Amino acid sequence: MNVNQLTQSFDLDSWSAKGLAEIETALNKWIPPGAPANLSEVMKYAVLGGGKRLRSLLVLGAFEVGIHHQDPLESAWRREAALRVACAIELIHAYSLVHDDMPCMDNDVIRRGKPTVHVKFGEAMALLTGDTLQALAFEVLTPEHSLIPDALQGKLCGLIARAAGHSGMAGGQAIDLTSVGQVLSEAKLSHMHQLKTGALLEASVLAGAMCAGVTAETLAKLKIFGSSLGLAFQVVDDILDVTADSAVLGKTPGKDADTDKPTYVSLMGLDAAKHKADVLLVQANQALLNSDLTHTDALVAIALRVVNRSY
Amino acid sequence: MNVNQLTQSFDLDSWSAKGLAEIETALNKWIPPGAPANLSEVMKYAVLGGGKRLRSLLVLGAFEVGIHHQDPLESAWRREAALRVACAIELIHAYSLVHDDMPCMDNDVIRRGKPTVHVKFGEAMALLTGDTLQALAFEVLTPEHSLIPDALQGKLCGLIARAAGHSGMAGGQAIDLTSVGQVLSEAKLSHMHQLKTGALLEASVLAGAMCAGVTAETLAKLKIFGSSLGLAFQVVDDILDVTADSAVLGKTPGKDADTDKPTYVSLMGLDAAKHKADVLLVQANQALLNSDLTHTDALVAIALRVVNRSY
Repeated sequence: MNVNQLTQSFDLDSWSAKGLAEIETALNKWIPPGAPANLSEVMKYAVLGGGKRLRSLLVLGAFEVGIHHQDPLESAWRREAALRVACAIELIHAYSLVHDDMPCMDNDVIRRGKPTVHVKFGEAMALLTGDTLQALAFEVLTPEHSLIPDALQGKLCGLIARAAGHSGMAGGQAIDLTSVGQVLSEAKLSHMHQLKTGALLEASVLAGAMCAGVTAETLAKLKIFGSSLGLAFQVVDDILDVTADSAVLGKTPGKDADTDKPTYVSLMGLDAAKHKADVLLVQANQALLNSDLTHTDALVAIALRVVNRSY
Repeated sequence: MNVNQLTQSFDLDSWSAKGLAEIETALNKWIPPGAPANLSEVMKYAVLGGGKRLRSLLVLGAFEVGIHHQDPLESAWRREAALRVACAIELIHAYSLVHDDMPCMDNDVIRRGKPTVHVKFGEAMALLTGDTLQALAFEVLTPEHSLIPDALQGKLCGLIARAAGHSGMAGGQAIDLTSVGQVLSEAKLSHMHQLKTGALLEASVLAGAMCAGVTAETLAKLKIFGSSLGLAFQVVDDILDVTADSAVLGKTPGKDADTDKPTYVSLMGLDAAKHKADVLLVQANQALLNSDLTHTDALVAIALRVVNRSY
């Protein structure tokens, strides 16, 4: 069976709509309504009602690969765990956007078609809201009085902290910050993106599968899927930066080229970058297809859509 | 037995020196040496070689209240857990200082007698380093291939995330940010400080004791100790802001009064503030003395020193 056959039989739009509705409801519930000052309002502004929620969908897609529990109680807490992971990762992603948009970083004024957080609420509040969102991610992962075992909670915190920190997203940001105006080799550019974007996408896949209780062997396959897809996502992002208009992008296009940031397109040209994205897609899906995993339809369909430039 | 009798028989300086050496070694080890760009250097600059490490000492002091395990293997992982908690809380505290010092917040240029992080490394790097330190705290709490049970790791992540987030430190900061120039009631000022400073001090005590495996009853007593001490610390901080010079303080004195921030001194006057600190000290220590807890010497001695203006 090839990629197209698989995805033809799967309705990604319906599946996504159902998942996204659950995620949005959960985020709305877990962003505390009564946080001090106007933190609740600013957190909701930063997190809700926007974004394509790729990370969340990867969590839910990977969860479905592994889930096969018959006990309704166990199924329920495992699904709750996956929902918590999806929300925690969205909170981490949202905090990183709030901080990246700040004047001392990318100085962006528009995000998802709205004024960025610091433009609307001031820099101090943007800084503080980002910090609060990162802590909230770990709060959401560690519910008290829950059936989700503390041991799983601990494992998930560790996985997501590592994906967010120096060996993941924040580390990639640091490389990015110090690479402006430099000519990077493809290896160094890949390393930067593997950390900056790939680590959290990969963690989404792994954490979703961990909530389902998959074997180490399955995790290893999903790791290849996740890392290939993570890199593909960034290559596509670089392509969109030069080909899309701001309505599609939801942010200012041409920004990377303007600020002299290294990209796959600047490094290898547009056609080679498109080819690279396709190769990575095949690599990602092969990791799933060359296995006896079932219920991979959602993941495969998401990967195809990533490379078809819709996320 | 009263407070003075207890502390006379306990050598806090020797005990602290031993604990602090352990903490410093552990922080040095757990701040990764090879983080991307110059993140390792900036993290070490922000975290090491300064500060009185009150939070760490509270963790170790509370750990000693509860520890009574004879099995050497269990003693070893429990002590490692306490050390990890101490370091994680120092990392959270350090990130908050880096971010608070930034121009959009307090705009401080000196911290612990050195240029603040954004002055030395730039604002973007300060922002990113703070973010990385928060993630690192949760990485330190969740070691892989460790004897520390995943379930304890999960519990500790939850406790510390809540102390750092909207219902703790960051929430208190948000109140602080929106209270400049306002006259707060004593109740509101206490609430702000309970969140901003008290929550993490209280969590230090509770998490240290959790590493030792204490009962829920003991935790409840330590919670009273921790919350009273946390508030006492802030009252004393406000007193020092008007009475100490910058050599003692390690930062610019008179800053709060200059920026029209509400303080205990501005609210109730210097003498009443001093009296309040003493009352809180008694309250904290009563929680320990009116119990059958042993090995409370370190905690009691730390509390006395907090109010004697040495932290």
